[in-house]
Amino acid sequence: MSLLSAASTPASSTPAAARADAAQMANAIRALAMDAVQAANSGHPGAPMGMADIAVALWHRHLRHNPADPKWFDRDRFVLSNGHGSMLVYALLHLTGYDLPMQELKNFRQLHSKTAGHPEVGVTPGVETTTGPLGQGITNAVGMALAEKLLAAEFNRDGHTIVDHHTYVFLGDGCLMEGISHEACALAGAWKLNKLVAVYDDNGISIDGQVTPWFIDDTPARFRAYGWNVIGPIDGHDVDAVDRAIADARNSADKPTLVVAKTQIGKGSPNRVNTAKAHGEALGLEEVTLTREALGWPHDPFVVPKEIYGAWDAKASGRKAQAEWEARFAMYKAAYPELATEFARRMKGELPRNFAQVAVDAAVGAHAKAETVASRKASQLALEAFTAALPEMLGGSADLTGSNLTNTKSTAPLRFDLAGEVKRDEQGRIGRHINYGVREFGMAAVLNGIALHGGYIPYAGTFLTFSDYSRNAIRMAALMKQRVIHVFTHDSIGLGEDGPTHQSIEHASSLRLIPNLDVWRPADTAETTVAWAVALQNTQRPTALLLSRQNLPYAPKAGLEDISKGGYVLAEPAEVGARGKPRAVIIATGSEVQLALKAQEQLAQDGIAVRVVSMPSTTTFDRQSAAYKTEVLPAGVPRIAVEAGVTDFWWKYGCAAVVGIDTYGESAPANVLFKHFGFTPENVADTVRVALSR
Amino acid sequence: MSLLSAASTPASSTPAAARADAAQMANAIRALAMDAVQAANSGHPGAPMGMADIAVALWHRHLRHNPADPKWFDRDRFVLSNGHGSMLVYALLHLTGYDLPMQELKNFRQLHSKTAGHPEVGVTPGVETTTGPLGQGITNAVGMALAEKLLAAEFNRDGHTIVDHHTYVFLGDGCLMEGISHEACALAGAWKLNKLVAVYDDNGISIDGQVTPWFIDDTPARFRAYGWNVIGPIDGHDVDAVDRAIADARNSADKPTLVVAKTQIGKGSPNRVNTAKAHGEALGLEEVTLTREALGWPHDPFVVPKEIYGAWDAKASGRKAQAEWEARFAMYKAAYPELATEFARRMKGELPRNFAQVAVDAAVGAHAKAETVASRKASQLALEAFTAALPEMLGGSADLTGSNLTNTKSTAPLRFDLAGEVKRDEQGRIGRHINYGVREFGMAAVLNGIALHGGYIPYAGTFLTFSDYSRNAIRMAALMKQRVIHVFTHDSIGLGEDGPTHQSIEHASSLRLIPNLDVWRPADTAETTVAWAVALQNTQRPTALLLSRQNLPYAPKAGLEDISKGGYVLAEPAEVGARGKPRAVIIATGSEVQLALKAQEQLAQDGIAVRVVSMPSTTTFDRQSAAYKTEVLPAGVPRIAVEAGVTDFWWKYGCAAVVGIDTYGESAPANVLFKHFGFTPENVADTVRVALSR
Repeated sequence: MSLLSAASTPASSTPAAARADAAQMANAIRALAMDAVQAANSGHPGAPMGMADIAVALWHRHLRHNPADPKWFDRDRFVLSNGHGSMLVYALLHLTGYDLPMQELKNFRQLHSKTAGHPEVGVTPGVETTTGPLGQGITNAVGMALAEKLLAAEFNRDGHTIVDHHTYVFLGDGCLMEGISHEACALAGAWKLNKLVAVYDDNGISIDGQVTPWFIDDTPARFRAYGWNVIGPIDGHDVDAVDRAIADARNSADKPTLVVAKTQIGKGSPNRVNTAKAHGEALGLEEVTLTREALGWPHDPFVVPKEIYGAWDAKASGRKAQAEWEARFAMYKAAYPELATEFARRMKGELPRNFAQVAVDAAVGAHAKAETVASRKASQLALEAFTAALPEMLGGSADLTGSNLTNTKSTAPLRFDLAGEVKRDEQGRIGRHINYGVREFGMAAVLNGIALHGGYIPYAGTFLTFSDYSRNAIRMAALMKQRVIHVFTHDSIGLGEDGPTHQSIEHASSLRLIPNLDVWRPADTAETTVAWAVALQNTQRPTALLLSRQNLPYAPKAGLEDISKGGYVLAEPAEVGARGKPRAVIIATGSEVQLALKAQEQLAQDGIAVRVVSMPSTTTFDRQSAAYKTEVLPAGVPRIAVEAGVTDFWWKYGCAAVVGIDTYGESAPANVLFKHFGFTPENVADTVRVALSR
Repeated sequence: MSLLSAASTPASSTPAAARADAAQMANAIRALAMDAVQAANSGHPGAPMGMADIAVALWHRHLRHNPADPKWFDRDRFVLSNGHGSMLVYALLHLTGYDLPMQELKNFRQLHSKTAGHPEVGVTPGVETTTGPLGQGITNAVGMALAEKLLAAEFNRDGHTIVDHHTYVFLGDGCLMEGISHEACALAGAWKLNKLVAVYDDNGISIDGQVTPWFIDDTPARFRAYGWNVIGPIDGHDVDAVDRAIADARNSADKPTLVVAKTQIGKGSPNRVNTAKAHGEALGLEEVTLTREALGWPHDPFVVPKEIYGAWDAKASGRKAQAEWEARFAMYKAAYPELATEFARRMKGELPRNFAQVAVDAAVGAHAKAETVASRKASQLALEAFTAALPEMLGGSADLTGSNLTNTKSTAPLRFDLAGEVKRDEQGRIGRHINYGVREFGMAAVLNGIALHGGYIPYAGTFLTFSDYSRNAIRMAALMKQRVIHVFTHDSIGLGEDGPTHQSIEHASSLRLIPNLDVWRPADTAETTVAWAVALQNTQRPTALLLSRQNLPYAPKAGLEDISKGGYVLAEPAEVGARGKPRAVIIATGSEVQLALKAQEQLAQDGIAVRVVSMPSTTTFDRQSAAYKTEVLPAGVPRIAVEAGVTDFWWKYGCAAVVGIDTYGESAPANVLFKHFGFTPENVADTVRVALSR
């Protein structure tokens, strides 16, 4: 297989035979793509057929990966940002030797196959991130490239380079039209991510047709404006030209690179090429036959000749690359045994051994101090402890650092020097707090990329209302089961004067509806500390922490152990012990727990014994045993929920009444608003009385 | 008042006295801004103080408006995209003569004042859109400028120009970092919106400090890449230079203009100027005093000298401008009486007189045909009727036209020629369907701008899952009470093979949580048609229509009148008439109504009489009378809800059980998925049996 040995070398001297091989290697992708889509009668043949030659250039001549070990740490990362072209990556994984047998390609888009409609991380070996929602793949890739750069700065030592890989992205017109591509690519430029290489499938066609009426961007000029290195436009069907462009890109010292590759969507299909019809539907049996003829690909569906398999096979080169890295790592370990151990821990995503103690100390300390502070401040106090103990915590804010309080003494601002190197402060520390700028969606998808890459636990902040901007990236973290922590401050009308545009009303509840996302709205310093501890241990899901702008009094409590269950009995009135049962349960979250406690007092004066349940995390509480849940919310005892947000959600707990707000807020000081909207102990107590009188 | 007569003339010959006046006019803004923020001890003085000179150039020398009639149709539109600088626009409205007395400025950010924390349309006369969530103001402005351009093409006649105004926007670094600015400004370039003029407050500071570490965009180059005319950088404190730039911008024949104005945030404050501290907090009494001295503004807080009021007063020039327009409109009316009547109707936002009949005919026709089609197709069928009858309907899609089915025979694609003019098709028609490209958030905020401008009822489509991308703009439409209609197709796991990234799970419920948004998930052609009719009549709120990809059988029904109530008794089993009461009620929406009907049949065979309630719009149903709601959902009869989405929401109807899906979907054909996730008549029937056995 002559081409195998050509991997990673410039292709200018590629002989004619190799070029012919390259064409057939590309045609293998085209055939598999059109055949799989045809078999499923569903899918997107256009992008894989159009990008097949680009894929040969990258995957055969540059990509450093080991099909036998898709999790090898120092592999290059590959992201198909135009995820609808999933058959491209499935074909590549199959052909290069991953555990993705032909049967899986035949089962494209069928239930429980490894070849889902869009690439899904965790489902298909070798898929690095779940893509499909456009613009997020390139943004994940920016996060991956950042993680690589920071890990290299943190762990590499002179003569010992253990972190050294590229992040490659394919993307199309759709990704470039999406706003998030602006946020992500501006950040990549500011961060000088020179090992990020994006190849733009510039085919001039989107679903609605030729893009010129709605997409006239001068994309090369746009990316130069972000501080990128731009190569092209080049012919995206000239494997050697793409190969040279990628080689040039890999030499970029201080800039990310965009390779603009002119292609034809659906290339190979005589009647669908260069049409929007090629994008999202099967070619049809007749056109598949015509395409076979046009390509000179006489093989049956799902049949790839042995020599083509041989040309694509990356198992040997992958094994070799990984073995070389492992040898390097062994030398590193010999020279820096502690660093190597720490590196291994970080790559596994395991918390430090003393984590449990750190968490307990922080929570017990908060309990002992019983401070009245805003829960955003409580979060910063907890972060002081956790960021000091966990060097993998990588924080940030969407231009609201002083409001979100996501920074700590341990996390200096991340900065790069003019040459693109990570700066160190006077103490030699690398920055661990990122100024993301006003880019909420981009930030959230970058966090996903950092988590997917490994080595860091990313977290970042913005106002809760702007979780709307980042919502789909939060969802993607939950779908991908990634440990990403969102710090959403200014969580209700309690933010006051900024008014209804900035006041969250529906956000707490609507985040709770996202499957596999944990949502915490803690009431005080202890709950906030526990919320952080649980979030850091949530290796299989993201967490959203909803925090107040305004001060919250500490809620006196007997112990801390039940907080991590998401909901617990915070306060029983004295007489309940004797009588055995409260007459009602008030369920409250966050800033409204203090109202519940005061209402409890008022009701006690009338001889009405009421339990207060603090429910900082409904999603966590819902996972507890039925026995525990009944213990906290006894059957037959009326429940009244109190939260400064929409009421709809709370009926799931069988409430008799909900004190909430189902309109937008107003611009006024917080204390005025709480009264105006009925968030007073008196109103809570009255609501309980009315519920009991029914 | 020497300056009054200089309005709208080039400023190059402005005498020295006028320049001095201009400085004091700007200082009046600075003083009011810092004093109001100080009085509230809350707010953002930096932007108003930094943009005060720009405001003099625009508002005093160019803006055509009438303070006595803020709703005068042909006024220039002004959008403060950096809405946190609200005191800038409040000061301008007060000084130029709007109904915004000084007392309101003294009440800045207090409950029920007309001076909310961020500018709110409908609260403050002269405020054109609610801003604060960054990037959306410029996007609203793009929608406004598009509406102006289309209305001009539609209604102006040779020698009769009745639509001719500019849209001016102020924006800052934050707006330019936001992804939506990319989407909006790329569209403005593609649409050649030459009457859109944006002034960029280029002060190099955002909340986290000097922006250079996180914002290195070459913004002029970026905007040129979008096809914009870029002027500057100029000195944003040189009123004459800004004046000239705006004059140049107004001459742009075929491009929108960005004026890059270098400014100092907090200009005038000796110690806060050029610092992030100036952005979002009161200067403090001491610094306010120092600023007064530095500005040479000796007047007490909230005191503006008579001559400065006189210089700012725009009442006379506004009256004159409107009177001239009214005279032109009178001539237009004489020449084109029918057009003028139609124009007046359109500006009022009133539906045509025959609307009710069109709606009834469409619904009755759908009922009579009883077709089995996807509800997205049902939507297109309804749209055929409504777009033919309502020339104000302006449709579009985020690059999914053939999937969303938002286009009709009456709505040709909107196109512009090379000179920037609106193209007409062979029948002389202007396009009424917009290809927004893959820009969901931008599209949604453009729709808001079109609605705010008036003259059109905007609607547009994407997949329901991508409502996540546009969520905050949907919220803004609801907050602003704007008639905007979102067509969200592919509304559940029923979209099939595209898999979990594209399958809505939590979206229907989470949209229902947004206050003042109507959500419809219709079950068949009749319900879809009624949903459209109700949406078009919803002048005070936006609507989201959630529509299926897959075919849905027509649900036989006795009549159509109750559909518009959002929930109604679709089918009673025969024996209920005699016994008076069903044993259970199945509540279903959209594609699950057919399951409910089949379960009803199965249960009837066991002698279990079950009512089926179709609940296409919970938000609409919730507004009905208590009597009607009890009629539909009788007290004491167990309720079981069925919807292919998260279950949490449905407990608000006191359900005994909910058949739903609380995990992500899978990639597989739709029929396989419905079975896999338990959406079968058998499972629904079993759930009812279990509920009854408890």
